[in-house]
Amino acid sequence: MITDNVVWHEPMVKRADRASRQGHNSAVLWFTGLSGAGKSTIAHAVEYELHSMGCHTYVLDGDNVRHGLCGDLSFSADARSENIRRIAELGKLFVDAGVIALSAFISPFREDRRRAKKLLGDDMLEIHCACSLQECERRDVKGMYKRARRGELADFTGISSPYEIPEHADLIIHTDQDSIQECTRKVLDMLLQRGIINDQHLQASTVKDAPAV
Amino acid sequence: MITDNVVWHEPMVKRADRASRQGHNSAVLWFTGLSGAGKSTIAHAVEYELHSMGCHTYVLDGDNVRHGLCGDLSFSADARSENIRRIAELGKLFVDAGVIALSAFISPFREDRRRAKKLLGDDMLEIHCACSLQECERRDVKGMYKRARRGELADFTGISSPYEIPEHADLIIHTDQDSIQECTRKVLDMLLQRGIINDQHLQASTVKDAPAV
Repeated sequence: MITDNVVWHEPMVKRADRASRQGHNSAVLWFTGLSGAGKSTIAHAVEYELHSMGCHTYVLDGDNVRHGLCGDLSFSADARSENIRRIAELGKLFVDAGVIALSAFISPFREDRRRAKKLLGDDMLEIHCACSLQECERRDVKGMYKRARRGELADFTGISSPYEIPEHADLIIHTDQDSIQECTRKVLDMLLQRGIINDQHLQASTVKDAPAV
Repeated sequence: MITDNVVWHEPMVKRADRASRQGHNSAVLWFTGLSGAGKSTIAHAVEYELHSMGCHTYVLDGDNVRHGLCGDLSFSADARSENIRRIAELGKLFVDAGVIALSAFISPFREDRRRAKKLLGDDMLEIHCACSLQECERRDVKGMYKRARRGELADFTGISSPYEIPEHADLIIHTDQDSIQECTRKVLDMLLQRGIINDQHLQASTVKDAPAV
């Protein structure tokens, strides 16, 4: 019988227990940068490596969050801010769950990222995917820049809405200069330095065997 | 160099890859029932067992969701509905991430649970923590029923707002009749039947060694 004195709601399995079982620590790798800067690409490349090393990962991006959890939000300033708040909260849950979460959203505003940082503290590693607007616009994978230039998209970051460059990013990767492999390696090196993964993980890295670019 | 033809956004690490690495499948164990019915208690007891078996789990409950991701929501009918929508979306992400998620919320309305089921499909296992209102009120761990009876809490489930009993629950556990261990065992048996865990996991179960009740 469950009786009054057995209501132990508190988790018996804690973050440290999960880290111990997984063999690595957790964090939120917060990729930020212009549309087309390569956030999702690098996030998935890093995930591929981490998974190969035996780490438990998950990428949060427009595809699985914007249409789902945040499907009720528009792209107004307030809604974008709420979007980032939820992503930060989501990241917090994944970190607590022992997963290395990789979030890939433009997240253009310092104030929103500052709030995320306040919530996540050292668990948030801000990675600035630095890429010139010119190069992002040249790529224009989804044709969004052309539409924004034609005035069809309001508040498009870089064109009709500002991108506020991170002032204290944990890592800057230059996706218009370095290869995917080089960018990926820099992220993995940071994870080693921050104690999220260890030397043994890195030795298992297949970074050179990543899908050909 | 990242060039136009290398924008492989799609995940290279998929749900099946995570399941393979973890050695078990994922699901959302959706505990529903009155306040005081033992949802969190059983969820944490099941998590303890699953973790002991080497499974990767995470409990979503009021403590980590209501104050965080859903901290902006009130307890109005609309807000409660939105709360459940977000929890379902959250569950979907955890399932995709390869984690066995255990959600412990009253979730009193059939329509809300139906929407969650529509989103999650077979990944959602609805577990009705059946416990008489009389017994829940007798326990009244947080003194909420007393407050509700005094009229201090509007829309309190069971008192001033209905609890709609699941018509097609995947499992019913009688938390006013069976012990925590018995309830836990029934949940584990269901997970075995549904192929979320396997015989080897269950053999590693320490259900008899769970914290003394």
